[in-house]
Amino acid sequence: MDFDNDAILSQVEELAKQRQWPRLREVLAPLPAADIAAILSELPEDRLPLLYRLLPKELAAEVFVEMEPEEQELLIRTFSDTELKEVLDELYVDDTVDIIEEMPANVVKRILQHADPETRRSVNEILKYPEDSAGSIMTTEFVDLKKTLTVKDAIKHIRRTGTDKETINYCYVTDPSRHLLGIVSIRTLLLAEEDDGIEDIMDTNVVYARTMDDKEDVAQTLSKYGFLALPVVDTEDRLVGIVTVDDAMDVMEEEATEDFERMAAILPTDKPYLRTGVLETVKSRLPWLLLLMLSATLSGIVINSFEESLATYSVLIGFIPMLTGTGGNSGSQSSVAVIRGLSLNEIDFGDLCAVVWKESRVAVVCGVLLACANFVKLLLVDRMLLQNVDVTIPVALVICLTLVCTVFCAKVVGCMLPLLAEKIGLDPAVMASPFISTIVDVMSLLIYFAFAALILGL
Amino acid sequence: MDFDNDAILSQVEELAKQRQWPRLREVLAPLPAADIAAILSELPEDRLPLLYRLLPKELAAEVFVEMEPEEQELLIRTFSDTELKEVLDELYVDDTVDIIEEMPANVVKRILQHADPETRRSVNEILKYPEDSAGSIMTTEFVDLKKTLTVKDAIKHIRRTGTDKETINYCYVTDPSRHLLGIVSIRTLLLAEEDDGIEDIMDTNVVYARTMDDKEDVAQTLSKYGFLALPVVDTEDRLVGIVTVDDAMDVMEEEATEDFERMAAILPTDKPYLRTGVLETVKSRLPWLLLLMLSATLSGIVINSFEESLATYSVLIGFIPMLTGTGGNSGSQSSVAVIRGLSLNEIDFGDLCAVVWKESRVAVVCGVLLACANFVKLLLVDRMLLQNVDVTIPVALVICLTLVCTVFCAKVVGCMLPLLAEKIGLDPAVMASPFISTIVDVMSLLIYFAFAALILGL
Repeated sequence: MDFDNDAILSQVEELAKQRQWPRLREVLAPLPAADIAAILSELPEDRLPLLYRLLPKELAAEVFVEMEPEEQELLIRTFSDTELKEVLDELYVDDTVDIIEEMPANVVKRILQHADPETRRSVNEILKYPEDSAGSIMTTEFVDLKKTLTVKDAIKHIRRTGTDKETINYCYVTDPSRHLLGIVSIRTLLLAEEDDGIEDIMDTNVVYARTMDDKEDVAQTLSKYGFLALPVVDTEDRLVGIVTVDDAMDVMEEEATEDFERMAAILPTDKPYLRTGVLETVKSRLPWLLLLMLSATLSGIVINSFEESLATYSVLIGFIPMLTGTGGNSGSQSSVAVIRGLSLNEIDFGDLCAVVWKESRVAVVCGVLLACANFVKLLLVDRMLLQNVDVTIPVALVICLTLVCTVFCAKVVGCMLPLLAEKIGLDPAVMASPFISTIVDVMSLLIYFAFAALILGL
Repeated sequence: MDFDNDAILSQVEELAKQRQWPRLREVLAPLPAADIAAILSELPEDRLPLLYRLLPKELAAEVFVEMEPEEQELLIRTFSDTELKEVLDELYVDDTVDIIEEMPANVVKRILQHADPETRRSVNEILKYPEDSAGSIMTTEFVDLKKTLTVKDAIKHIRRTGTDKETINYCYVTDPSRHLLGIVSIRTLLLAEEDDGIEDIMDTNVVYARTMDDKEDVAQTLSKYGFLALPVVDTEDRLVGIVTVDDAMDVMEEEATEDFERMAAILPTDKPYLRTGVLETVKSRLPWLLLLMLSATLSGIVINSFEESLATYSVLIGFIPMLTGTGGNSGSQSSVAVIRGLSLNEIDFGDLCAVVWKESRVAVVCGVLLACANFVKLLLVDRMLLQNVDVTIPVALVICLTLVCTVFCAKVVGCMLPLLAEKIGLDPAVMASPFISTIVDVMSLLIYFAFAALILGL
């Protein structure tokens, strides 16, 4: 079904206005949880608790997980203790952790008070891990098996305990001290003979992550191998949780968004665009704008120191935006290509020479072709068509030689900076166009005035 | 296990040199297929067919899927007919399609000749669909069940046919004319009673895609609902295939890369950075550089038409890079935020007013704060510290008013262009910094000279 949320939304609004609660329940209940959450978030806030209570218990918990933190908080505040406990019992541990991380302290306290002891223990364990670690996105609810079981007993075990697990697609075989011995997929289990031993059918070449690994690397690993879940072990090699593919997809999306933001000189925010307030947006954008604005002073100083020469050869001024712009674009092409290569693990710092060599050759070809195109354009359009007599062949030569050198420097700097940033532990995405452009502006002006001095004798 | 591919690579190279084939097989066989493919691709090409033949048959097929097209082609050319048939028999249909799409015609012909008739039919069906459609990334190998089966019979059916299916995590219930009636997850199946009817336990609220849907939307849907697979129906509502989450992750990664490239004025390529040749890279970068360079002529024309005024008030020249740069950065912040919102389906064209209203307010706050900071800097640093007597209060006023107006126009244009592009069917990502900067350059110069004329009487 392709759910037409807009049509359903107006139907829901209408039914809510007419207070037709049983009908409303019938409309909402068949929808996927994510869509119900989206619909509820469009309705006036004071309706939310009432509408939420219409949902069947299990579905209600699924919808709760999909809601925005503000709505979750509103609901928790209106929940009775029994209602809160009911919702918490239905949640998976990793979802509970996600919710807790967004709530104010008094709400967190109330949640932990009403969670069962086992959940509380797991929540506290996951909360221990740093924000970007594998530990922070794992769930502790997985199926574990002993290696001495037969397939038949294993399936019995899964049938008995499986309802509370986030996934039963993989079962993890552990020894008594919880070391990971192997993995059996539910597929292997189903396709095996009933009296096969788990030990004989398990896969012992297990790819795993460590609790302190970067969550981005974990998502990359899941994607690279096409796994549905990855086991996570602690510093003593004991299995403590698993990261499932849906969480990995969320991480990939978040990280891509952060990279996009950094590359556009925005400090990363984790809220959807329209839900971020004006002041919050200003806070994420102003620091870089300010920094880049002030560093543009450098370009100003370069220009001012050639002010007198420019006054005599004023034709040169008009080409400044074209030269700095082309330099900036060339540099940002290289830097973005390298930044993306880094985040997909296609290249690393060891490839520095190969990258610089490649970019140099690309730069020479691009620079020379652009310069030729520009030379023809200067003589045909500017000189002949627009009758600008100041555009002489020496002037055109200055502009075109500047172009070749600027493109070269821009591409080499553009490809090196992200690699160097990665090496010293900065996020390479910061080294994208806004930053590169500011550096390239100064470089291209210096090159421009150097050629002008050389050829025009300024 | 965290595989240390570099260490293994040197071990493999050493063993290959010593021709210790059985030992080599022992080293490679326990590794995940993706890692073996990565290792083999690092070795000299002429070794590849020999090393590949060391792998156990089933693993060999998995490794084959993970290889780069050039290596696959090389191997296929060295395969005997029997070897080719063996590999093809082990591949899933969607992988076969992926390989075929990259091969030259004579290799494709040979592959289709040696595939079994059933596979050939499926391959040809998938190849029918356009490149970006759901149909092109689906697999036709899924588990289907009749609604009249019991759980016990269904499990029997899966055990009999499951080995050839790409996933058994979801089973699809269809009627005799192949219309999709419902879905049963393997988890529901395992946790149900043996004599329950499939009809009673299946979920009939099925989210599905259509063969012609955009593959990016399909990936978004899988991610949004946290599904492991999505059924795909044809125009007559018959179930023809499924898209699995691993393919969806690849699509998400590819689309993010394409967006990054478009936003940096690069024509999208689908090869890893270091595997793209110099000329290929030039081809993907030169067109936009050329176009943007030529459109920068406009800025030049604006400056030239104020050449004489600039000659008298030459202090104004030095601030051009700062003004155009800040404008460009402001615009690219807005455009990137909107582009990302569009590709995550957080906003659409209907939000145009809300977006413009938000950006206008952000722009006013940012613009005024930047202008104030700049005013103080102009008087304290430029006038007092650097003793630049040309920086008078009227000049500072011109610069700061230009800043406010430029930031405002840049942010409004920056947020509108991607939405308009989406509306008329262009890729919004093209409307990112390079394009925006070129427009903003002209705008900011016009604003600058207008204020200069007004206040300084140029």
